[in-house]
Amino acid sequence: MNEKEFLAAYDKGNFEAPLVTVDAVLFTYQDSQLKVLLVERSNHPEQGKWALPGGFISESEDKTLEDTVTRKLKEKTGVVPPYVEQLATFGGASRDQRGWSVTICYTALIAHQACESELETISDIAWLPIE
Amino acid sequence: MNEKEFLAAYDKGNFEAPLVTVDAVLFTYQDSQLKVLLVERSNHPEQGKWALPGGFISESEDKTLEDTVTRKLKEKTGVVPPYVEQLATFGGASRDQRGWSVTICYTALIAHQACESELETISDIAWLPIE
Repeated sequence: MNEKEFLAAYDKGNFEAPLVTVDAVLFTYQDSQLKVLLVERSNHPEQGKWALPGGFISESEDKTLEDTVTRKLKEKTGVVPPYVEQLATFGGASRDQRGWSVTICYTALIAHQACESELETISDIAWLPIE
Repeated sequence: MNEKEFLAAYDKGNFEAPLVTVDAVLFTYQDSQLKVLLVERSNHPEQGKWALPGGFISESEDKTLEDTVTRKLKEKTGVVPPYVEQLATFGGASRDQRGWSVTICYTALIAHQACESELETISDIAWLPIE
């Protein structure tokens, strides 16, 4: 079998694969305090708990991991943060009840006034002050 | 549906997921030179090309990402490197011909004498001097 035939026959659905998400630690500065964005989970698992914003890679919408994190943050805040940087990747068998999972985590910064009007209409997000 | 029912019904095979590998930049020091381990690919795609050692997460054998990288390096060198640290994660739609892919990349260090006897019997690996 040559490479072309191998690729034509390759179906990644035939192999086990972990859950892969991209999450963000989005910081802002407001009222003399550094704050981080949290989102209340609307779906199972861990429904109702506060989590970092993020989600699954979309193979059709995203070309890069940065596309995923900026798309997810835009969905939540209405704007694309001007600064995004990869922090670290966390993975393991027991960190998600759905199975072996990996999350690529980014830090990001946004000016509070850039997203203030969008965010004040949303009830399931909160800026947690960093003490 | 409660969380227990959600988890019982959850099948991650129903969702698209990228290829996920863990790769290593394994350094050693020999003959007054810093060197990095390369492995000649024995399978498609990119068969015959030199690559960083690594491979897919095994959901049954690995509990953490570090388990994957140390298992893969032990397969190649016969020993577990004493020092392993996460470097960065690279991902995107076009970096692997098989599809959207993510690799969590580690750096590692090993003493050359620790793996010398194992490695000299293997024809498809090479220590590339860093100029």
